[in-house]
Amino acid sequence: MTSISINSIELLIEVLGTLAFALSGLIAGLRKRFDLVGICMVSGVTAFGGGTLRDVILDRRPFFWVENSYWLWGLIALCLIGSAFLKSKHIDFTEKAIQIPDALGLGLFAPLGTQIALIQHLDPIVAVLMGVFTAVFGGILRDIFCNEVPKAFSDHQPYAIIAFIGGWVYVILIHLGVTELLSSLTSFLSITIFRLVAINRNWQLPKWNAN
Amino acid sequence: MTSISINSIELLIEVLGTLAFALSGLIAGLRKRFDLVGICMVSGVTAFGGGTLRDVILDRRPFFWVENSYWLWGLIALCLIGSAFLKSKHIDFTEKAIQIPDALGLGLFAPLGTQIALIQHLDPIVAVLMGVFTAVFGGILRDIFCNEVPKAFSDHQPYAIIAFIGGWVYVILIHLGVTELLSSLTSFLSITIFRLVAINRNWQLPKWNAN
Amino acid sequence: MTSISINSIELLIEVLGTLAFALSGLIAGLRKRFDLVGICMVSGVTAFGGGTLRDVILDRRPFFWVENSYWLWGLIALCLIGSAFLKSKHIDFTEKAIQIPDALGLGLFAPLGTQIALIQHLDPIVAVLMGVFTAVFGGILRDIFCNEVPKAFSDHQPYAIIAFIGGWVYVILIHLGVTELLSSLTSFLSITIFRLVAINRNWQLPKWNAN
Repeated sequence: MTSISINSIELLIEVLGTLAFALSGLIAGLRKRFDLVGICMVSGVTAFGGGTLRDVILDRRPFFWVENSYWLWGLIALCLIGSAFLKSKHIDFTEKAIQIPDALGLGLFAPLGTQIALIQHLDPIVAVLMGVFTAVFGGILRDIFCNEVPKAFSDHQPYAIIAFIGGWVYVILIHLGVTELLSSLTSFLSITIFRLVAINRNWQLPKWNAN
Repeated sequence: MTSISINSIELLIEVLGTLAFALSGLIAGLRKRFDLVGICMVSGVTAFGGGTLRDVILDRRPFFWVENSYWLWGLIALCLIGSAFLKSKHIDFTEKAIQIPDALGLGLFAPLGTQIALIQHLDPIVAVLMGVFTAVFGGILRDIFCNEVPKAFSDHQPYAIIAFIGGWVYVILIHLGVTELLSSLTSFLSITIFRLVAINRNWQLPKWNAN
Repeated sequence: MTSISINSIELLIEVLGTLAFALSGLIAGLRKRFDLVGICMVSGVTAFGGGTLRDVILDRRPFFWVENSYWLWGLIALCLIGSAFLKSKHIDFTEKAIQIPDALGLGLFAPLGTQIALIQHLDPIVAVLMGVFTAVFGGILRDIFCNEVPKAFSDHQPYAIIAFIGGWVYVILIHLGVTELLSSLTSFLSITIFRLVAINRNWQLPKWNAN
């Protein structure tokens, strides 16, 4: 496989993952009956919030959506089209349909965030955490902007924890001398497959035993 | 008109706009029965949050309220006086009265944020967004700190969208070779007048057609 | 007293204070029935949020929890142990028990934040505010992440205001030429004692007179 086609696949997954995040923000905004401004902002925060937080922590500038502003045009177009054509009856279906691109995005963004932090020679636990933030924090900010309890904290579905484990897969493989490409790919596949199985089997994180 | 008097007018509008933002935070805090600490923090976040977020994104330091700390003294004085003298019966009146300085602030801060981003050679859409953030994000943070759904997303009044359009007015005029002063002034006037007419006529953004 | 033993005492207080903050986040997460991911995130935000915000404002990198990543391991261990062993009946007791380490943390972090800002030659009011943010903002973020009104704004207990006064104690002593060690110590003691007396006597901040 040439590096061009690998880059094309990575870009495709990046677009699909970001689209899934943006759509989940769009749906959250529609459910709250936000106006177009609110929908665009919530959608943008969900799509770009995780990577932006990572870059604030690691002091990286410019942010990717500042440097590549066609992401913003894409987001506005998505929100305009989404508000115009999505009806109440489509929302549950859409939410189910975006689970697959969302799992792809989770698998891509977690090792990506980890990789960016490792390049800065940060400790493995920090690097893994940067991967988790990249993948998960957009959804947390979406819920805070919608005045809801973050689903990532309260729905007991394995999501951030899969990104956490997948980040360690990446760190360990790199440490063992495996190439970046193969490490990313293994991490990506384990996260995405794990996530899809978790959705399919409806796995739940253990509940706190309060008594 | 000499440049000194233009600077004076700009400073006057800046003070009026910031005062309007701070007062809207103060009122939100009083309504929530916050203590003086909460009132000062919410008022400060409303007044300085938008410009601070812009500066975090653009990596500009020090923030203006860090560099010019008399803004902080002014805020504390405002909150002390406001808590002591504002009564329940005054709140609705105050909220109505600050609409005019708030519209002036919207007209000033949106082209100002756009201008700051253009100087950094950022793309027009990013620059316009920085103007919107400067003008709008303080109010969004105010509502998040008060545990409310952001009004900017949900009240269907044209506000951020006016800042967005006014930002494009600025960008286009600059692009056409108009001087900075004239571009700012045109953007300022179109935003402020548009906003005041929107309040007066009670314009509403279109609602999502859910069916 | 040798400087080594002073550093040991400072480190001990830092650990105790951070532990108190982390535990208050852990308890908030348990109360909300968050899963382990939510508990770790809220606990981490409470423990590290204030210092991180200060460092974002002052543009200091790397953050202390990025540089000294054993803090993260400690946090994860604390959350695992806490979720496993804390039961409903223990929570009220734990919340009461952490008031003392929390008061120690308040006394340590407020002058520490002030000192860091003074070293950057910032104005006293900004420096004092950085101290308040360091000590208080973790708890504010904890409540926002839990979708609650921040207690720091609404419970009318003197907390941030004590950090504010203690910060001025530090600034004034430094200005009078007192050594850093003695200034920090005086600020620390006045804050911690003031806070413990305020808890013991159940002091309340004055309420807004709405009529």
